Amino acid sequence: MQINEIEGGICAAKGFQAAGIHSGIRKNKRKKDLALIVSDELCSTAAVFTNNKVKGAPIIVTKENIADGRAKAIICNSGNANTCAPNGIFIAEQTCKLVAKELNIDEKDVIVSSTGVIGEALSLAPFEEGIPKLIKKLSHEGSDKVANAIMTTDTTKKEVAFSFVLDNKECHIGGIAKGSGMIHPNMATMLCFITTDIAISPEMLQNALSADVVDTFNQVSIDGDTSTNDTVVILANGMSSNKEIIKKGKDFEVFCAALNAVTARLSREVAMDGEGATKLIECIVSGAPDKHTARVVSKSVITSNLFKAAMFGRDANWGRALCAIGYAEAAFEIQQIDVVLSSVRGNVQVCKSATYFPYSEEEASEILKEKEIKVLVAMNQGDAQAAAWGCDLTYDYVKINGDYRT
Amino acid sequence: MQINEIEGGICAAKGFQAAGIHSGIRKNKRKKDLALIVSDELCSTAAVFTNNKVKGAPIIVTKENIADGRAKAIICNSGNANTCAPNGIFIAEQTCKLVAKELNIDEKDVIVSSTGVIGEALSLAPFEEGIPKLIKKLSHEGSDKVANAIMTTDTTKKEVAFSFVLDNKECHIGGIAKGSGMIHPNMATMLCFITTDIAISPEMLQNALSADVVDTFNQVSIDGDTSTNDTVVILANGMSSNKEIIKKGKDFEVFCAALNAVTARLSREVAMDGEGATKLIECIVSGAPDKHTARVVSKSVITSNLFKAAMFGRDANWGRALCAIGYAEAAFEIQQIDVVLSSVRGNVQVCKSATYFPYSEEEASEILKEKEIKVLVAMNQGDAQAAAWGCDLTYDYVKINGDYRT
Repeated sequence: MQINEIEGGICAAKGFQAAGIHSGIRKNKRKKDLALIVSDELCSTAAVFTNNKVKGAPIIVTKENIADGRAKAIICNSGNANTCAPNGIFIAEQTCKLVAKELNIDEKDVIVSSTGVIGEALSLAPFEEGIPKLIKKLSHEGSDKVANAIMTTDTTKKEVAFSFVLDNKECHIGGIAKGSGMIHPNMATMLCFITTDIAISPEMLQNALSADVVDTFNQVSIDGDTSTNDTVVILANGMSSNKEIIKKGKDFEVFCAALNAVTARLSREVAMDGEGATKLIECIVSGAPDKHTARVVSKSVITSNLFKAAMFGRDANWGRALCAIGYAEAAFEIQQIDVVLSSVRGNVQVCKSATYFPYSEEEASEILKEKEIKVLVAMNQGDAQAAAWGCDLTYDYVKINGDYRT
Repeated sequence: MQINEIEGGICAAKGFQAAGIHSGIRKNKRKKDLALIVSDELCSTAAVFTNNKVKGAPIIVTKENIADGRAKAIICNSGNANTCAPNGIFIAEQTCKLVAKELNIDEKDVIVSSTGVIGEALSLAPFEEGIPKLIKKLSHEGSDKVANAIMTTDTTKKEVAFSFVLDNKECHIGGIAKGSGMIHPNMATMLCFITTDIAISPEMLQNALSADVVDTFNQVSIDGDTSTNDTVVILANGMSSNKEIIKKGKDFEVFCAALNAVTARLSREVAMDGEGATKLIECIVSGAPDKHTARVVSKSVITSNLFKAAMFGRDANWGRALCAIGYAEAAFEIQQIDVVLSSVRGNVQVCKSATYFPYSEEEASEILKEKEIKVLVAMNQGDAQAAAWGCDLTYDYVKINGDYRT
């Protein structure tokens, strides 16, 4: 199977248009804060959401709207999470109604999503004014506007697309995401919207997405805080005219691989753009007794505040990595474990059989100068592997979060 | 029952002597790094240790030595954790032998403990030279020397003592602790040594200690990292001549209350002196459906990086507290929850029924100027309560941990 990277983000797939504008939800007029994605055709739809008990009002409304596995449009704002806020459900429902009315579609085919501050009232006015403007601006080149509009403290937009072949038809898949802070997804993540033009049943689409996030977004952590608004949505409009995927098999596998190309890339980008981050930290666990252990161990390393701070300081303090492995909640033998630190500058083994392994601190420090650091954990007690993605802990994380609202 | 605070730390109880010196394990000659605590009589002994799979060699040796519930001396160094280090077990055993030989006691009655960097070789030389010196300096006024010697990045020594009456005899209990970083105890914590002169069986002593830590040290978190060397040890030498406690009853209850006075105080002090901390954050949960939920919810709030950073910035960002409550792993209803922020400057309710409650940002910011902040979470769905202690997340935490070893 061949999967090729292409341009276009969420507008790479046939029949998707998008737009993003500044509507006034945010004070800064140069920051887009409202976005719309629309498909020409009704889409098979799948989603995963946060498992935080505190759920944003948009999540509650969206869950109801996509219960039939179908949707046609996504409306999303940044600057206010519409969570624990007065009249949250009413505002989210009215937003869907406004979109539905202007597009002349069913309000139950609209997905609504919000990100930003928790607990502040969201007004309908920016939506009333903004939605007609968005519809006028809808375009097949609108992906980067949406990727911009959903950013909060993100410093880079996160957008990717791939083409692949199914049933001899050229197909496309693209996605955008926002991350940055309050990132420790569980069942889902931050916001991520994915579009594809393949034909697939809602059940198989949900199947693919639910299986995928376990090893992609759920293996990302910026700060250990599972957000209230985590949402990953995928829309598949069938406009590639492939034979509809309704069961497992070769076509489903090809699609899963294409989906994974999108989610794995966006996961890395979210981790790399963590609040205040200067480095991407990727922990790759191999030789684990089972997949669960590999996931838990890799995530434990990239979640450790102490190890994250050491990476910021270019300090090969592998004892902190081993400590984080040691408190990971899984059943394994600690004594077999080896650890290697790696970047494009080279590799250095720092720990063998859970004990100090002689290495050069200068060499290690040199390797840690890079922006992308790999922590390779060889467990030597099985065949399972997994990876997790995080970032370093820096002064700027504290700065950004010490006065986020001021 | 009456429990009175007294001077003397771990030497407040009859028959305990202590000393602390600089032995050369640390480079800084002005920092004490080796300490000894000795009881005139053989003690009933209880302990709890880290549940990290990576365990310091001293923990393995100490567990074996106190398997009979008895000990007479504690030797402790800072500057090197003797964990994942070459010959760790041998070094820990030899250290016990050196102490036993010089004191003319059984090596199996010696407790050994280490704190500091993981993975670096610890040499016997400083112990060979230092232990005879320590023995010469043993004194009934030595508690603060030990409290100093076990500090790593701690900025204040943590030492407390109380007197109480059992069986018409005046009894004493005192403790010292070190904390600062890699603090998220589970089953135990950092290092804490407690001495008392009551007579009690080893079984009842373990009973008291195991029950106590669940609501004291296990409810402390500085950074979510469960250390490899967490140890709480208590020695009871019986020199108060009370009737030996061998079962539950009034005497046991009085002792448990006195023990809790020591551990609760030291838990708060460890939290307040977290690496880089400017504030103690105490989360008090009431109205929980059960004790477990109260513990988990309170600990989730004080562990949230985002909430901790907001406290550093004096930002009443209660949405982050509610978010942390929402991802706490326990079964409860989120909708009934109220949140109040409190300090000696006053109280401000910021959240009612999991939703925004109108308050003055200026007033909240004023309250958050204090060094001790309480987050009062009323769950309104039962009678259980619990507290947890943590600190804010600051630039200095990153600074200290970005170059801990350099």
